Amino acid sequence: MKNLPDKTVERLSQYRRSLNNQLTKGKTNIFSHELAHLLHITPVQVRRDIMLIGYSGTLRKGYDIKEMINLIGKIIDTDEGQRIAVIGMGNLGKAFIHYLHEKGSKLKIVASFDVNPDKTDKTYAGVHCYHFDRLAEIVKKEEINIGIITTPPEVVPQIADKLVEAGINGILNYTPKPLSVPDEVYLEEYDMITSLEKVAYFVKHRD
Amino acid sequence: MKNLPDKTVERLSQYRRSLNNQLTKGKTNIFSHELAHLLHITPVQVRRDIMLIGYSGTLRKGYDIKEMINLIGKIIDTDEGQRIAVIGMGNLGKAFIHYLHEKGSKLKIVASFDVNPDKTDKTYAGVHCYHFDRLAEIVKKEEINIGIITTPPEVVPQIADKLVEAGINGILNYTPKPLSVPDEVYLEEYDMITSLEKVAYFVKHRD
Repeated sequence: MKNLPDKTVERLSQYRRSLNNQLTKGKTNIFSHELAHLLHITPVQVRRDIMLIGYSGTLRKGYDIKEMINLIGKIIDTDEGQRIAVIGMGNLGKAFIHYLHEKGSKLKIVASFDVNPDKTDKTYAGVHCYHFDRLAEIVKKEEINIGIITTPPEVVPQIADKLVEAGINGILNYTPKPLSVPDEVYLEEYDMITSLEKVAYFVKHRD
Repeated sequence: MKNLPDKTVERLSQYRRSLNNQLTKGKTNIFSHELAHLLHITPVQVRRDIMLIGYSGTLRKGYDIKEMINLIGKIIDTDEGQRIAVIGMGNLGKAFIHYLHEKGSKLKIVASFDVNPDKTDKTYAGVHCYHFDRLAEIVKKEEINIGIITTPPEVVPQIADKLVEAGINGILNYTPKPLSVPDEVYLEEYDMITSLEKVAYFVKHRD
């Protein structure tokens, strides 16, 4: 189960989200073509992903929704959870903290960092904000292994260097500034404008 | 050029972002395998996308970065831009407004909506916040055709219904609550936790 492709992991997360939603609607089973429709992808893609995680449904009833949610959880969650830091306590940093706090996720934001004295030494939704100078110390003390970067783009490369030095294993770069990091650090980059540009394109080209 | 696949449009946006970054570093040309490496995808994928938009590089020098940025702009931007509303003026809504404001994008957020009297009738980074009751009126008056939903999950379906009724053509649902909308409305859904779960998975499975 070690070598699932990037995109499969992304879709597993999306499947779980849709499956949970179906469950709250009282559905117990779902066919691959239904799940595909919900995610705007092909049924073949769904079946391929589900096969990769070693699950199979029945022809007559499709997949068992609860079983599949549990299985996906076993694959993408960690029992002990993950300890995360947010760097940059602007609106986006706060949105992440608020989101995970509400959700009660096993992904825990345990510290945040900023350089602005109006933000440091305060606590937001239970998460303390430290001055960025204390990054290495707090990462070690709090056993943090993932950093989410939500700072202004111009400081992103320095922030990433400090995170890598501090021994972090994964970075989510949520800024428009592309990064490069050593191979042993997993980097995921997401630019908010990409989702919006996609909508804009299809709105422009609709008939 | 009307029928580019969803994922190609998404990657074009990502190519442009990386190409702009290379340009600021003084690079003028780039090979498909270099661009692929920057985006963690295969060179074949890059070449297929670039072929789809009718561009080609030279064997010796690769793609001309400036030409490619311009061409992508012609495809995914609209001359007159797009007029956008944000529904939900929490941290995430503010982050979108701030981001597009800073960027000087052709995608313009021209109005925002909330139900909280502490937020309505105020202006944030030049964007006025109206009470949600005025949605239909303002969408018409401001010629808005895209809505970004950043509200709490439980109200998302009602918000989407109102947006569709008001005549909007595209929705970016930036909440954990999956939606369904009529076929004529383009829907893009993005859940912040997906990016984070991906990082967590690969951090957990690294050796």
